[in-house]
Amino acid sequence: MRFLSFRASGRARYGLVVGNGIVDLTTRRNEPDLKSLIAAGGLADAARAYAGNKPDFALDAIEFDPLIPNPSKIICIGLNYHEHRNETKMTGDAYPAIFLRFADTQLGHLQKVIRPKSSEQLDYEAELALIIGKGGRHIKERDAMAHVAGFSCYNDVSVRDYQRHASQWTPGKNFPATGPFGPWLVTPDEVGELAGKTIQTRLNRDTVQSSTLDLMIFPPARLIEYISSFTPLYPGDVIATGTPGGVGWVRKPPLWMKPGDTVEIDIEGVGILRNTIVAED
Amino acid sequence: MRFLSFRASGRARYGLVVGNGIVDLTTRRNEPDLKSLIAAGGLADAARAYAGNKPDFALDAIEFDPLIPNPSKIICIGLNYHEHRNETKMTGDAYPAIFLRFADTQLGHLQKVIRPKSSEQLDYEAELALIIGKGGRHIKERDAMAHVAGFSCYNDVSVRDYQRHASQWTPGKNFPATGPFGPWLVTPDEVGELAGKTIQTRLNRDTVQSSTLDLMIFPPARLIEYISSFTPLYPGDVIATGTPGGVGWVRKPPLWMKPGDTVEIDIEGVGILRNTIVAED
Repeated sequence: MRFLSFRASGRARYGLVVGNGIVDLTTRRNEPDLKSLIAAGGLADAARAYAGNKPDFALDAIEFDPLIPNPSKIICIGLNYHEHRNETKMTGDAYPAIFLRFADTQLGHLQKVIRPKSSEQLDYEAELALIIGKGGRHIKERDAMAHVAGFSCYNDVSVRDYQRHASQWTPGKNFPATGPFGPWLVTPDEVGELAGKTIQTRLNRDTVQSSTLDLMIFPPARLIEYISSFTPLYPGDVIATGTPGGVGWVRKPPLWMKPGDTVEIDIEGVGILRNTIVAED
Repeated sequence: MRFLSFRASGRARYGLVVGNGIVDLTTRRNEPDLKSLIAAGGLADAARAYAGNKPDFALDAIEFDPLIPNPSKIICIGLNYHEHRNETKMTGDAYPAIFLRFADTQLGHLQKVIRPKSSEQLDYEAELALIIGKGGRHIKERDAMAHVAGFSCYNDVSVRDYQRHASQWTPGKNFPATGPFGPWLVTPDEVGELAGKTIQTRLNRDTVQSSTLDLMIFPPARLIEYISSFTPLYPGDVIATGTPGGVGWVRKPPLWMKPGDTVEIDIEGVGILRNTIVAED
């Protein structure tokens, strides 16, 4: 089952993907948005009830919103693949590196990433996103995957000079329109085993990142255990699980994204998240 | 003028402090909460209209909520006083170190800070909080103070081992009930010049931090310029401006807060924020 947040006929909606179309759930369910449907535990019900419907909208006739436009928490993991840890020459730790994004940095599939006037150091980061279904605190690793409503793609676009202004990465990870998230949520039953599935970034025609999801140092269940040890998780919360090797800033010369470029995050069994870059006005 | 968020007669309210009492604005204004009153630019109007009223509640008969329970952004500054930078042996940077707090970490004056089961390393950090009045992006330093609705006290309570699990401080700064914020907002005209005003922490009877606000490395106006260079600020957003020297973890032996302790943040002209420590259930 695949779900998404989108805009059509001038209003924000959410729906169920059926073939190349969308069954609008906004008009059929009481929950106002996808986060609320997740919180109500309604994904399976909605899929059962409406998977046989005729689509209300074609996928190519809508605007994609960030998959969850309004999460209470967007928790990002750094240095979670050995190849990336090595290329950055940053030391590994016994715990994941964790930083936060504001929701107003997010954008949908096919929306435009903004390169700020203040920097040319715009870099891609392909990441598997976990969307929390059932919230909780002190969740154990063995129970953690039952708290995941589904998976999606995240491009943790980073402004590298701002990221390295000081020890904490917050500024470089929080420019407006730098958090592509989507195109949709795929439920765990449809994704199946994560092990062996590829995660790739293509910049224009070139594959610039390529790895598999089992190479994470801290896998999803361990991340949920650790994160929920210090903060409660709520339905619709997002965990961006870190990026593999191949980012632009460690290349010689560095590879920056520039206006006109197209960047695609492609995760096998999850989807392709495509965005173009524009310059800030 | 002083404003606060509080609970009385079983509901969340906000109001204007008049002597030792509170004029309830919830029942007199259309805005549902203090953040909305700030966004409407209504602080001065509300003070003019109701400063002469008889209080509805005594200050000692209410429960304090975090000053802004629902800010869109809580932006915290690290290493912003030389004495603290030196005691931590962390290197200085040309830009402020910035990390984020979730709103669900906050608590009000006189509410209980929770020491988690998972750590004994609970530390205090006295900080001046700025509350944004008029939002904006790319705010210039010279214009920045016109964007400040008022000042308050923040205790950026930190779980030091979690803070140092990896390079990013997020986990140690986001345990539930570790962000005392209040007791009230004091408007800039009432606070007057920040230069020379003292900021202190008392743990039980001992003064453990003592400095003055003009010793910040990046003063409030410069912080607003820098922060708004990468993220838009909204009314009610909170900037915790960093703590002076004297924190517990650099002492020999370390000084940790423990259940039963009382911690006070005292900022001259702003207020005294008092909390006690309890153990997690």
